[in-house]
Amino acid sequence: MTRITGITTIDVRAPTSRTLAGSDAMHTDPDYSAAYVVLETDGDLRGHGMTFTLGRGNEVVLAAVKALAPQMVGVTLDEIRNDMGAFWRRLANESQLRWLGPEKGVIHLATAAISNAAWDLWAKAEGKPVWDLVADMTPEEFVACIDWRYLSDALTQDEALDILRARAATKATRKAEMLRDGYPAYITSAGWLGYPDEKVRRLCKEALADGWTAFKMKVGRDNADNVRRAALMREEIGDECLLMVDANQAWDVGEAIEYVNALQQFKPLWIEEPTSPDDVLGHAAIRRAVAPVGVATGEHAHNRVMFKQLLQAEAIDFLQMDNCRLGGLNEVMAVLLLAAKFGVPVCPHAGGIGLCEYGQHVSLIDYICVSGSLDGRMLEFADHLHEHFINPLFVRKGRYMPPTSPGFSIEMLPDSLETMTYPTGREWVPS
Amino acid sequence: MTRITGITTIDVRAPTSRTLAGSDAMHTDPDYSAAYVVLETDGDLRGHGMTFTLGRGNEVVLAAVKALAPQMVGVTLDEIRNDMGAFWRRLANESQLRWLGPEKGVIHLATAAISNAAWDLWAKAEGKPVWDLVADMTPEEFVACIDWRYLSDALTQDEALDILRARAATKATRKAEMLRDGYPAYITSAGWLGYPDEKVRRLCKEALADGWTAFKMKVGRDNADNVRRAALMREEIGDECLLMVDANQAWDVGEAIEYVNALQQFKPLWIEEPTSPDDVLGHAAIRRAVAPVGVATGEHAHNRVMFKQLLQAEAIDFLQMDNCRLGGLNEVMAVLLLAAKFGVPVCPHAGGIGLCEYGQHVSLIDYICVSGSLDGRMLEFADHLHEHFINPLFVRKGRYMPPTSPGFSIEMLPDSLETMTYPTGREWVPS
Repeated sequence: MTRITGITTIDVRAPTSRTLAGSDAMHTDPDYSAAYVVLETDGDLRGHGMTFTLGRGNEVVLAAVKALAPQMVGVTLDEIRNDMGAFWRRLANESQLRWLGPEKGVIHLATAAISNAAWDLWAKAEGKPVWDLVADMTPEEFVACIDWRYLSDALTQDEALDILRARAATKATRKAEMLRDGYPAYITSAGWLGYPDEKVRRLCKEALADGWTAFKMKVGRDNADNVRRAALMREEIGDECLLMVDANQAWDVGEAIEYVNALQQFKPLWIEEPTSPDDVLGHAAIRRAVAPVGVATGEHAHNRVMFKQLLQAEAIDFLQMDNCRLGGLNEVMAVLLLAAKFGVPVCPHAGGIGLCEYGQHVSLIDYICVSGSLDGRMLEFADHLHEHFINPLFVRKGRYMPPTSPGFSIEMLPDSLETMTYPTGREWVPS
Repeated sequence: MTRITGITTIDVRAPTSRTLAGSDAMHTDPDYSAAYVVLETDGDLRGHGMTFTLGRGNEVVLAAVKALAPQMVGVTLDEIRNDMGAFWRRLANESQLRWLGPEKGVIHLATAAISNAAWDLWAKAEGKPVWDLVADMTPEEFVACIDWRYLSDALTQDEALDILRARAATKATRKAEMLRDGYPAYITSAGWLGYPDEKVRRLCKEALADGWTAFKMKVGRDNADNVRRAALMREEIGDECLLMVDANQAWDVGEAIEYVNALQQFKPLWIEEPTSPDDVLGHAAIRRAVAPVGVATGEHAHNRVMFKQLLQAEAIDFLQMDNCRLGGLNEVMAVLLLAAKFGVPVCPHAGGIGLCEYGQHVSLIDYICVSGSLDGRMLEFADHLHEHFINPLFVRKGRYMPPTSPGFSIEMLPDSLETMTYPTGREWVPS
């Protein structure tokens, strides 16, 4: 019987701000970072998890992990396996700590790191990647991983079971298809806001040569600059490829409508994060005014209640949950079911550090168990920092090939952890 | 010229869980705590601020304060005074730290503590209480304290100026009225969920004798128990007094409708926090189904965008912002204007530690500058821990008498700080 004995935390930061990788309208100088946690046990296995941040404040998330840690000590893997939903609910609703959220911000980011580490531990014990562990669950086992509080007005457990049962018989076919062909993706790392035009052109050419057919670019508060850069991107990628634009929360509702409509000529598939991530009604108003451009959001939608409303209000065409922003895979599974009920495709947020690694599991679970569809669905890809993971992801001609190693693909190389530990690692000590 | 030289942080916790003061359906054992900050300066004045928490996790908020602190070092009081809105926006939108929110959870609680300390510093420099500092502002100065991002679809700056100008000529009359009569309040501390019936009866009798005419009680997930306790409260306070009930997020939307309607016979004025604080559309659905009982929420509504939507969706009858949950007084001022535009009365959340001290300033600003009305408006009062403040609040016959000492009324006694410092103070060291 495996028992958790404690949590080790590591403050991992990559100095990406030196190259402006990841720069956008609101985040001008990110240092891609991981609040990295290890569930220590009395056995041979350990569970690895992390939450993504932009650098400063990574230590605050780790302080929240430490605040949650006493709850984890003594928990057995069997307790987690036998009632994953109850395990998550206890973690997310500690009677004093929940005031810090509830279910949002730093405390929820910490909940994600820990609960994802519990999934990693469980999957390693089963000798399966997490996506396959979930794919092998019965509909009843899947539903039992979810905290159903606050969902019943949009989705009941019975409706969820109906959705899952309708897919159950054909799971094996989709699993074989994924292992053969991979999951479709789009690329973001050509179009960072801080990159000079020539670099964007070169990166587009390289991505086209690698087989990419869907590209995302960042836009900002300068309308003329947005138009110029969209023209440049469209010129490079041609009319056949998909182009998406991402405002990263830069605009008021009225500005969003004006700025997006100025980009209609470049036929963007979606406008991402046009305004405050909390503004469900604002997204709905923008969506009505910018069609046929779709509205996408979710990387800052902090819990299942926000996604429930984005769907109820018909505010989005593409749902972009983040496996670290939500409180980990348990809550992701709830949102996958909500999206299926409302018929909205899921295109998980990825990039940063570790998010592509997590996102591939999420998209595979969506396709194999929940939606059964690839229509309108793509997983984000950005080509940064994958070399630091023990089981690196594998992208071939614009598709993610399913990971096959046991766990959640998030365990990092010892040398990478040491090099990027803040502030003592080699990356951070002036040479 | 006063310049900020650094921030001192103190982890202040009161062991209230020992008596179950503050207990409710979701928070069974709170230790009322303050993440307490002091803006140190090169002059004679210091700015004091705090954010309320329930104990565990107070240290996480202080870690976030420390992460924000480098931004504050070197800032002058004149810079704050000359553009309070820009000061707040810089603080709330630090390019890496904003990922931890944005504008929600731990990082926003920390923003509140710091920005409220800046208000305290400014008011002390003027020799006025904060409410009076704001009451003396022109409409233009008031509007300049606000970060207007994300508001223009519901409230423009011109509309805000119109609201404020309509009240400007009569501010002196309302100020004199407040200094004479005080601001109306209601009492919560008789009806905590964990209190035995006899204690509730005794506290109701004592509160009635002290002149209270409005009472709030906690309800939970046991319908029969809710009915029994509401009957008890109504029996004690009689038919003339107001009774409010507070579910503290315990229910799904459908449950809320069922449980509130079971209490209709006791004629509650409002149901508070019937479901997830993030569920704007859920509150609107509940409101439509439980009238004439009103819906109240806000102590966990984390920013102006959430309140904007609660108002746009006609989800609430009473708006209960919290001066620490929002990012401090700057954002409170934005929400006061939104509430006035939509005609919804503001009844600030208070209680805990320090929240009554803050709330009295908020309600006075609302009445004197913004709404000009007491109709449907009451400030919460709970009789806990006021003795620890240097300028204790003064409640007379169920009304808050306006504070007259300079600042934000939040500076605590040195001995109280020492006694309650966690984990080294006398309250926390086993004797």
